[in-house]
This record gives sequence, structure tokens and C-alpha cells, in this order.
Amino acid sequence: MATTLEAPGWLEPERLEDVRGRVPMVYVEAVPVRVDHLGRVTRVGFLLRPQSDGTLSREVVSGRVLLGESVREALWRHLTKDLGGDADPQLPPTAAPFTVAEYFPDPTRAAQHDPRQHAVALCYVVPIDGEAAPSQDALDFAWLTPEEVASPTIAAELSPGHAVLVRRALAHCGVAA
Amino acid sequence: MATTLEAPGWLEPERLEDVRGRVPMVYVEAVPVRVDHLGRVTRVGFLLRPQSDGTLSREVVSGRVLLGESVREALWRHLTKDLGGDADPQLPPTAAPFTVAEYFPDPTRAAQHDPRQHAVALCYVVPIDGEAAPSQDALDFAWLTPEEVASPTIAAELSPGHAVLVRRALAHCGVAA
Amino acid sequence: MATTLEAPGWLEPERLEDVRGRVPMVYVEAVPVRVDHLGRVTRVGFLLRPQSDGTLSREVVSGRVLLGESVREALWRHLTKDLGGDADPQLPPTAAPFTVAEYFPDPTRAAQHDPRQHAVALCYVVPIDGEAAPSQDALDFAWLTPEEVASPTIAAELSPGHAVLVRRALAHCGVAA
Amino acid sequence: MATTLEAPGWLEPERLEDVRGRVPMVYVEAVPVRVDHLGRVTRVGFLLRPQSDGTLSREVVSGRVLLGESVREALWRHLTKDLGGDADPQLPPTAAPFTVAEYFPDPTRAAQHDPRQHAVALCYVVPIDGEAAPSQDALDFAWLTPEEVASPTIAAELSPGHAVLVRRALAHCGVAA
Repeated sequence: MATTLEAPGWLEPERLEDVRGRVPMVYVEAVPVRVDHLGRVTRVGFLLRPQSDGTLSREVVSGRVLLGESVREALWRHLTKDLGGDADPQLPPTAAPFTVAEYFPDPTRAAQHDPRQHAVALCYVVPIDGEAAPSQDALDFAWLTPEEVASPTIAAELSPGHAVLVRRALAHCGVAA
Repeated sequence: MATTLEAPGWLEPERLEDVRGRVPMVYVEAVPVRVDHLGRVTRVGFLLRPQSDGTLSREVVSGRVLLGESVREALWRHLTKDLGGDADPQLPPTAAPFTVAEYFPDPTRAAQHDPRQHAVALCYVVPIDGEAAPSQDALDFAWLTPEEVASPTIAAELSPGHAVLVRRALAHCGVAA
Repeated sequence: MATTLEAPGWLEPERLEDVRGRVPMVYVEAVPVRVDHLGRVTRVGFLLRPQSDGTLSREVVSGRVLLGESVREALWRHLTKDLGGDADPQLPPTAAPFTVAEYFPDPTRAAQHDPRQHAVALCYVVPIDGEAAPSQDALDFAWLTPEEVASPTIAAELSPGHAVLVRRALAHCGVAA
Repeated sequence: MATTLEAPGWLEPERLEDVRGRVPMVYVEAVPVRVDHLGRVTRVGFLLRPQSDGTLSREVVSGRVLLGESVREALWRHLTKDLGGDADPQLPPTAAPFTVAEYFPDPTRAAQHDPRQHAVALCYVVPIDGEAAPSQDALDFAWLTPEEVASPTIAAELSPGHAVLVRRALAHCGVAA
């Protein structure tokens, strides 16, 4: 984790906790996809991660934008940290996100929530050209077809917020899942 | 300012200053426009505001998203505060911004900068159907044609960050300014 | 139908048939919505129309762009013809569609097909501020909530192409249907 | 030109001329770009082509969508025909264009016109990962920086319609040209 420790925007846990109680946090979220030569999405990539309640959950890439860091730099940092240095993520030429996800601590507030904080996440679909080698905090990484993502079994394994996010990403890409 | 004083996300100046030194701030920016019945932009609205250096500058609507406030609520709050309660802003049905503006304290970092803070702004074009009556901190409000906006005289009166923002907004709307 | 008869781009049926066999047709499709003051979609509007096979089907607004007609003019013409002159459609300030729907005569080619022709449709979400009074070729017009649209009963009444289109429109608007 | 001759949507010149007088043509336009690892545009690619009036003009990739051809297939066909088989174009995962360009035969109608026809063009920014080897109808192909594109010398060499298109593409990509 040398990268984030050295980054000027990094905060000690108690300071981060304090800031989280005062302003919304800026996040980036990236839905990793495999595309064919015509740009059509053929697979969506998911990390399998243990949750704080002891369960396992499938997630896409997500993380905070640090002080002084650009949105593109944050996307690159989280993608290469979560998927490894050989992932070769193809960041889009526009910085306009396809959607904005708003996470509130209050679960009744929106379909997407986060018990820790109020976060505003800029969301992107990012084609991955290289090989994904998930970082050690993930138990597994899997490429699933859009049909598999829509199946009840897999849908139940997604974190609720990311299930919404991935459905929106596939709709944006014109995939009739 | 009763609205913001009562809002739970409001912060005392010294606390806000402290938070600004730790994380990027979430902002919304709205380019107010008049449109004809076909949705074509005919005018762009600018507030004339005194700057901290004593000069005057033309600006569009811009402000912070408070803790617990949604992006749409922040847009509505800033638009009605800056343009008055009869402005009747037509917020877009999608929350995806047409662009993201990143303001850094370092002026060499990007075309858009802010000496006070690192801010990530979600930017929208918002048609105004009602009458704009600018709030008291603005000296004037004016609707300008896209040709006027592009003229050197007016361009020089825009804050540099908002000059870039408005050019991008007009390009997004297909106005050949 | 005086408007279209007089339009220079209008074609007699046999000529239109001939052209349809040679090039893709340009269409516009508009998903009519009711929005609240924050721009959030609260209702989606559907026309109930008899189909060529004798069944009834719920549809959104759709029609051809004529020779010499702009995309915005075509949107306005079809919206006011289908929903009446008091509908007051709020055309978006950008002409970039939220999605492109491609209809092919071959039903195995895509989720959206059209036995008559190859059509490329530019798709928009259009808030309706006025009263919708459907034209005589429609049996009914109804505003449905996003939850109703997602219910199996209503979903079965939508034409297959428009079911896909409306799901994408709601995803684009951040409605978790 | 074997590719287009064999394509079912290909039309003999006189038939194409006839159809052009009846309906708008569907086009795709692609602005070829080089991007860095963060997705930022560093160069824009232009073909130098002789025009019908004897002058030379810089252009981006543009062409018709044939009957039965998808928008993505048309983009791929025109990109690989104009830039060669080793260009390795990275088609975007979404089929929603960043803008729609409308070309009318009447030059007073819009900033973009085409004396031959009424065309509706879906426009995309397409990163090129490989080597561009322009086809024989082009005299040259050059990668220019955004600053060069904005210079008066180069701006004067662009076809008027594509000058507008490229400015909109750079604005969409957040390049302050």
C-alpha cells in the first residue's frame, strides 16, 4: 500500500472518520468489462470480497479520490490496485461519467447506500485489455457474461449498490440484460 | 441564508477550512440557459459578482453539495438562491453531468483552478423557464446570446474556469460558438 | 395530417417502400415522462395502439425524420402529433441521444426489430409539462409509475422494442426499476 | 473496394442519387485520437484529401451506414478502410454518440452542410492504438496536438463541418482547446 501511504491526500483513519461526518466524499467506480472488436460488452468483471458482516459479496472497482488527485488518476490507481499492474485498463477519452451514484448512510434514502458515509461516486465503464490479477484483499475475480449477471443466483451475490450500478452500466452499453 | 444555516451539512468557516485541507469538495455547477420550443439554446445567463481581488466577474451558478444533500437538491438550492424563487429551473431527468470540472489550488495543474480548495464539480445545463431575480451578492444578471458570449469583450469578463465551462456547455448543446 | 402532406420530405407509400429496401431509415423515439421539481422521473407515458396483427400494444412516441427536417423538428412534430398540441414537450438542450436503437427486419439480429425496415433511431427522454390528448390512432394514453412499468402485467403489454427502450431510459435517469 | 461491393447494402451511383433525394442518409463520423494511459487526448488524427473543387482539406473519418449494417459495423468498416487494417480502433462500449451532426444541402441551414445530401451523422471519439496507414484516396495522414488543431493555419485547412465536429469532440473530452 506504499502508493496510498505516500500520497499527500492520504488520511489517518481517525481523521478520515472525522471528515466523513462533515462533507460528502468523492468516489470513482469502474465497471470492468471485456469488449469485442466492435466495442460490444461480452463480460463484466467482479471481485469477490469478504464483507464486514462476514458474508462474501461480488463488487466492481470503487474507491476514494484523494486530495490533489484527479478523477482520472484515482480511476487508474484503484483499477491497477484492485486488478493488478497487468490489467491495462482503457480509460475513456471523456471524463463525463455515464451515471452518478449517491450513497447515503440512511438505507431508506436511495437504492444505493453506505453505512460509513455520504459518498458521491462518478461511474465509468472501463474495458480491460490485459490480465486481471486481483489484489490480496479479494478472494476471487471472475468475468461473467451479461446473462450470468442477470441470473438470480449471481444477482444475489452482488452488493445491492453494485447490482444497481451494473444494471445501469449494461443499459448504457445497450446490452439487453 | 436561513436555508443553509438550518441544513445539517452546513459547517462553520473554520471547520470548513480544516476539511478543505483534507479531501476534495463536491460541487455542482449549472449553466442557466433560455431555450426555444425545439430545445435550442438562445441565451446563457450570467451573474456579475465582485471578486476577492476587487474586480468584477461574470459567473454561472456554482456551489457545494452539503452532507446528506442529494446532487439534485444541491442544484435546486443553488439555482433558486442565486436566481430567485421564480426562476423555475428545469432540472434534467438524468443525473449524469455533461462534464466534470476539476478545480485545483495549483493554477498550473488545469485550465480550471480555485485558490481555496480542490473541488470536483458535476456540471449541468439547466433551462430557466421563469424570471431570474439575482440574489443580493450579485450586482447584475444578464442573458447573453452565444455570439455575445464568444465575443472578446464578454469573454474577458468571465472567470477563467467558467469561460471553459460555458464553452463546453455550448459545444455539448451543439451551438457553434 | 396536413403538416406531413405538405412537408417536402413526405413520400407516397410505394416510394417509401422502395427506399426502405435500399438504405436505413432515420427515426426519433421519445420516452414521455413526468418529472418533479428536482427532475426525478415520476411517471412514464404510453400510447395504447392496435397492432397490424390485431393485438393491442403500449408504445412510446416514435417516427421518421423527413428529408430536410432537423432531428429536433422531427421530435417536436411526432410529440405534438401523438400527444396533442397542449402537451408542451420540453426538448433537451443537447441533441445527443441517450441511446441509439437499431431495428432490423431480422428478429434474430437484435433485441429490437421492425419487420418493415432497417431503422436507426435516436432516443430521448422528454419531460411533458402540459396535458397529453392522444391522437385518434391511439385508443388510450396512460401515465404509469416506474414500478408499474416494471410489473409483469404491464411489461407484457409493451412492444418488445419499446420495453427495452424504456428500461434503458429509466436506467439512464437513475430510476432503479 | 471489394468490401463495399460485396455488402448487401451497397447501391449503384444512380440509385444512391435517387434515394438521397427522398430521405436523410445515416452516417457515422469518428474523430481518431491518441490517448495517454489516463485516457487524456494527446493527438487528433486527420486525413488530407483532395476536394471536388480542387482544393485540399483535412478530414476525420466519415461514411454511410449501409442497409443491414449496424452502427458499430459501419464505424469499424470506415475506420479500417480509411486508417488501414493495423489501426486497432478502440470502439466505445456505448453506442450513444457524443453528438449528432446534421448536414443539409442548404449552407444557410446549419454550421455543417453537405451539397450532396441531407445526412444525420452519429459522432464518436475513437482512440487508435495501432499504426494508421491511410488509404490511397488520402494524400497524407497526420496526428496533430489539440494546440495545433486550434491554430489558425490548421483550422483553415479543416473542412468547415469537421472543424465544428472536432471542436465539439475536444470539448467533450475536456480538452481546453
